[in-house]
Amino acid sequence: MNTAKAQLGAVLAAGGPGLAYMLDRTEARLAEVAEGHGAELARHASGTLAAGGKRLRPMLVFLCAGGEGVGEPRGEGNALRADGAPDGRLVAAAAAVELLHMATLVHDDVLDRAPLRRGRPTVFAAGGRLAATATGDLLFSRAFAELAATGSADAVRALSAASSALARGELMQRADAWSDDVSPERYLERCRLKTASLFEASCRLGALFGGRAGLAAAVGGFGERVGLAFQMLDDVLDVSGPAERTGKPHGTDLLDGTVTLPLILARERDAGLRGLDLREAVSDPTRAEGICDRIALTGALGEARERALEHVAEAKLALAGLDMADSRRRALELVADGVVERYA
Amino acid sequence: MNTAKAQLGAVLAAGGPGLAYMLDRTEARLAEVAEGHGAELARHASGTLAAGGKRLRPMLVFLCAGGEGVGEPRGEGNALRADGAPDGRLVAAAAAVELLHMATLVHDDVLDRAPLRRGRPTVFAAGGRLAATATGDLLFSRAFAELAATGSADAVRALSAASSALARGELMQRADAWSDDVSPERYLERCRLKTASLFEASCRLGALFGGRAGLAAAVGGFGERVGLAFQMLDDVLDVSGPAERTGKPHGTDLLDGTVTLPLILARERDAGLRGLDLREAVSDPTRAEGICDRIALTGALGEARERALEHVAEAKLALAGLDMADSRRRALELVADGVVERYA
Repeated sequence: MNTAKAQLGAVLAAGGPGLAYMLDRTEARLAEVAEGHGAELARHASGTLAAGGKRLRPMLVFLCAGGEGVGEPRGEGNALRADGAPDGRLVAAAAAVELLHMATLVHDDVLDRAPLRRGRPTVFAAGGRLAATATGDLLFSRAFAELAATGSADAVRALSAASSALARGELMQRADAWSDDVSPERYLERCRLKTASLFEASCRLGALFGGRAGLAAAVGGFGERVGLAFQMLDDVLDVSGPAERTGKPHGTDLLDGTVTLPLILARERDAGLRGLDLREAVSDPTRAEGICDRIALTGALGEARERALEHVAEAKLALAGLDMADSRRRALELVADGVVERYA
Repeated sequence: MNTAKAQLGAVLAAGGPGLAYMLDRTEARLAEVAEGHGAELARHASGTLAAGGKRLRPMLVFLCAGGEGVGEPRGEGNALRADGAPDGRLVAAAAAVELLHMATLVHDDVLDRAPLRRGRPTVFAAGGRLAATATGDLLFSRAFAELAATGSADAVRALSAASSALARGELMQRADAWSDDVSPERYLERCRLKTASLFEASCRLGALFGGRAGLAAAVGGFGERVGLAFQMLDDVLDVSGPAERTGKPHGTDLLDGTVTLPLILARERDAGLRGLDLREAVSDPTRAEGICDRIALTGALGEARERALEHVAEAKLALAGLDMADSRRRALELVADGVVERYA
């Protein structure tokens, strides 16, 4: 955790005061949204907001825009306008991607019946499943409202593509639950849908509103690969990570039947795991820990981690030829590295 | 039911072949959306789609546009273009409002743990709560994608305002559950949020894409009043209606603590009802029927119905001064009347 915090600090340092300023504006905007749509949302959303998070997606928006904050001269298309004021559309985009992310977390907590997130009661725990489902829907709606206010249909298109992908990823995950026949390719497609798509959209929106529309596809590709690595390493951590790091016990994915890369690779190496009926095996939850150990013994964790690192390397490579300030490229590379450091 | 079907037939007759054609196009578009976003959505959404419904909201879109189908000459801004082809943006808007409506139904069925809707298994029943929540989210996302494809940020704004309102309405309903202190005004505001807002948006989108942007506010006001009446009469029916008409037993709202206008008015008239602890009273579900009868005895149902009819009358009045073809006005009046007939 301290490593991750140090890494975040490095990104902020590379991004400069402009990045920190834009992130502050985003916090303020998120608070406005939470307070401006009825007493019920204010009550439910303020906790989710205050619980914070790394604001990784807003950070990607700003770093993929041009910007004073990342070492480029003031001027049109910069995160800070020539007069030093923030570009409202970039703040709107950053708020939108974070609102969409929050909406999915609130819905996930209903589905997982989760009592806590980041040490605070979830909306589900505090308000029940009806209030939490509606709160998620409202955060979702406000994400689109933020972008509609910018007047850019292209931006709305990028967000609706991402939000569709998130939902498709969830559906795919349910369809594949408990399956003994998930290929690495299908797993990767699921990661792309349920995680990488929003990273990609964040980068695209930054380029779109940051006067760098020509770079949208390229930085989108960077974001997608970072997102893939993020999800893949998350899945490694679910099997390997100490509970005090992840905030949840080993093998949470196993317990709800989610088949991730470590298990897929381990099954290729260990016939006993291949023959295992997962649903039956974890009917006694204490056995999940043992299955995690057995996955680890096959070396599958190392290989899954290696594959994730390849995506990080490709993400950084995708930045190499782009027409952007070195300081900005450096900050984006630090974000990519940060995804790895989080799990170091 | 037969009355409602006859009324729908009258609207279609008034709308002419153009309206029927546009509604057919909308069905085709909805089927494309259901099939074009992964096997999981196709499986889950096709049932929801096939279950149909009155397509009241798409109908409002087309009737609030100019249009060949409603007796106006062919030409720019008509639902049918000069060459007789449909205006893709109107079909997109009609699909969007119906997708958003479907998304809320799918989520509602999760929250109500409903086994059937319109005689078919719900997505919740067929796929479980995780698949149903994600299916709702995906339908939601596709609604915004439909409008984003039109390139109109104004249209996205109208839809996000409506979808925010729907969610706020749900939150308000949860906040007021079991309350003995809901005013008629607060009840009306809830109806506006959770039902009338999408009727309003449907009418606005029709005007916007149908070359009648100047009428957007006025037809939006019409839609809002029709939506208010629709919800108010639905709430009357929950207390009074025969189960074979409503498809659910008497007093469903009472059982989940939803305080509607009939109860609010009855409490003003019957001190015994006023003193009743609702939660305790329906802890034995068979008692809901008795409470419905007691509400009916106060005359509250008649008054609630009268108030709904006032909104229908105002809706029709709002059309009187508008610059639109008589045939189109007549078709919209029939929609307003149809809301009442549904409960005759």
